[in-house]
Amino acid sequence: MPIVLLTDFGLKDHYVGVMKGVIKSITPEVDIIDLTHEVPPQEVKAGAFLLGVSYHYFPCKSIFVAVVDPEVGTGRKGILVSAGDYFFVGPDNGIFSFVLEKEEIFSAWELKNKAYFRSEISSTFHGRDIFAPVAAHLARGVPPKELGPPLKNITRLPWPKIIKEEDRLKGAVIYADRFGNLITNIHEKNLTGRKIKKVIYQGLEIPFLKTYALAPPKSLLALIGSEGYLEIAVSQGSAAEKLGTQGEVHVELA
Amino acid sequence: MPIVLLTDFGLKDHYVGVMKGVIKSITPEVDIIDLTHEVPPQEVKAGAFLLGVSYHYFPCKSIFVAVVDPEVGTGRKGILVSAGDYFFVGPDNGIFSFVLEKEEIFSAWELKNKAYFRSEISSTFHGRDIFAPVAAHLARGVPPKELGPPLKNITRLPWPKIIKEEDRLKGAVIYADRFGNLITNIHEKNLTGRKIKKVIYQGLEIPFLKTYALAPPKSLLALIGSEGYLEIAVSQGSAAEKLGTQGEVHVELA
Amino acid sequence: MPIVLLTDFGLKDHYVGVMKGVIKSITPEVDIIDLTHEVPPQEVKAGAFLLGVSYHYFPCKSIFVAVVDPEVGTGRKGILVSAGDYFFVGPDNGIFSFVLEKEEIFSAWELKNKAYFRSEISSTFHGRDIFAPVAAHLARGVPPKELGPPLKNITRLPWPKIIKEEDRLKGAVIYADRFGNLITNIHEKNLTGRKIKKVIYQGLEIPFLKTYALAPPKSLLALIGSEGYLEIAVSQGSAAEKLGTQGEVHVELA
Repeated sequence: MPIVLLTDFGLKDHYVGVMKGVIKSITPEVDIIDLTHEVPPQEVKAGAFLLGVSYHYFPCKSIFVAVVDPEVGTGRKGILVSAGDYFFVGPDNGIFSFVLEKEEIFSAWELKNKAYFRSEISSTFHGRDIFAPVAAHLARGVPPKELGPPLKNITRLPWPKIIKEEDRLKGAVIYADRFGNLITNIHEKNLTGRKIKKVIYQGLEIPFLKTYALAPPKSLLALIGSEGYLEIAVSQGSAAEKLGTQGEVHVELA
Repeated sequence: MPIVLLTDFGLKDHYVGVMKGVIKSITPEVDIIDLTHEVPPQEVKAGAFLLGVSYHYFPCKSIFVAVVDPEVGTGRKGILVSAGDYFFVGPDNGIFSFVLEKEEIFSAWELKNKAYFRSEISSTFHGRDIFAPVAAHLARGVPPKELGPPLKNITRLPWPKIIKEEDRLKGAVIYADRFGNLITNIHEKNLTGRKIKKVIYQGLEIPFLKTYALAPPKSLLALIGSEGYLEIAVSQGSAAEKLGTQGEVHVELA
Repeated sequence: MPIVLLTDFGLKDHYVGVMKGVIKSITPEVDIIDLTHEVPPQEVKAGAFLLGVSYHYFPCKSIFVAVVDPEVGTGRKGILVSAGDYFFVGPDNGIFSFVLEKEEIFSAWELKNKAYFRSEISSTFHGRDIFAPVAAHLARGVPPKELGPPLKNITRLPWPKIIKEEDRLKGAVIYADRFGNLITNIHEKNLTGRKIKKVIYQGLEIPFLKTYALAPPKSLLALIGSEGYLEIAVSQGSAAEKLGTQGEVHVELA
């Protein structure tokens, strides 16, 4: 089953390539898939979002290696999490928070067994020295309990909650994608069968439509995006540039 | 045989990774190759160009998934095209136009059989919900006619033609690459054995040379590029920045 | 064993994808790994650095194809180098210099046998027409001596040396990574067991710490980076932007 990589390393340097070299040196047959390496530097929450909306599209038993790791080289733990038929390897800094909003049952282990690390561990690149080799050993069949002791609690980021009033939902933008689409934490299932009457962001009432192409070019629209979350977009333009990425989103229900 | 991806999704987000997850969930053994994901957003013609200059370098039976899809979620069809020993999957919006300038004989099918789609179809991401799974099923042996009814006509973009006068060819820039090289639609075979005397673009006469390194740094040159098309370049610089990307190109023949 | 690609082609265009198509057409089973395609355009030294800090993380017998090739189409040779259990294919312009700083023993061959090139050779894209197919044939078992005659000497870039004084090392910045970290040519082994007292760059004394997270946000620090080289960084910021990428680095030893 594949090893899937998510990092904030970018593609300019050798960092991602070297992680792949380390993995292939341990388990040459494994498939490696890039989820993304362009998480904004050190933004753990953005990485957590991207992982949480993506993992369930991959084959069961996929092993995700997630490295957005501003505290590398300090005391923060390295962990393995097993949840919902998948494995997740990375720093214990909340990067798996959104996965665990969706998967209530999980097991976790602290990565302690140096037999499965590279022989020299740098202070600055645990992606290469710990997480990549651990994932590779897991892929070749090493059982989780070999990697270290079980952990009861792992770090969770406070994940923004939706406030439900009688005819209104209040949520927040949690991610701005490449096109400048603003993805909120309001999911279509939060509508509980009711219809959207109005969407309000930055004091503006934004038309709710079915897809991008239904709005005039350069105009604002709201829609249910491909993951089921309410998005605010500008047709053939960038909502992030036009309205910024911070602020509450209000939805009035019909 | 590989599945080859071309999109305008960029690499910042999870969109491309998720398409790969969907493919691997259906057919784990298939090889996935990225042609590019940096087609300028919604520029179908640029995507068509990149696909048309690239497909014939890939192994026979490769399956190309091309998603530059500004009309996603509206009535536009999804199609499969078989041409020149290759398969092409994507929206029916002209993205295969340049391939079909080169391959006169083709077959096409409308993607209608939902048995080969994901079970839920979003309005905004048919790359994940329709095109990726269809390509994966094709790769594991599902015959084209299972996917939907045959189509006689598919959408073709008007592809810029070359005007041939006695001692002159008139063409146009069709793509600006990463280096700012301006690739025109004038192919060396259009010279029909004659030599180039002058190249004129934006009112400037541009020296015709064999390769980039033969021009002084920062100076303009014209050359036959790696695909056989006339290019206008700036040695160690960007012709796109210097001269813009719009306009006729005239070639005077010796 | 994998073929590993390093180029300055970027990911916007079709160039990298097409190289992969050519490789897979010759040897469909081979694994292709991207080291990076974002070497700054035509900066052979940056490419040499990235290759030299990376190759030893890959499986033995990996074949590296390195294409940063400003002189393509002129008389410069194409070469195959065998060093330290790896193969390296690319232009003879110094791109393998840093590998050969580390691997004193090597063999080299000039790529002359057109039977292993594409049948038509462009003047501008030897990555596709010569280096990719040669690597693919090598991967499927063609012996190096089939590819051309042995070469005694290959092009080496002058690689910046460290000046050692009694209590001081003088070095230089050789690469600025995506985060703006300035990587120098001073390796921890050059300290010969002594400790760092002071690091001086651009007239500033820079605190030497163990990892990024130990410096206050936005402040300068020096540290031993993940490859063992002294780096100058700004915590949660860019040293390249703050201090530029040119200049001597002085280390005073305790």
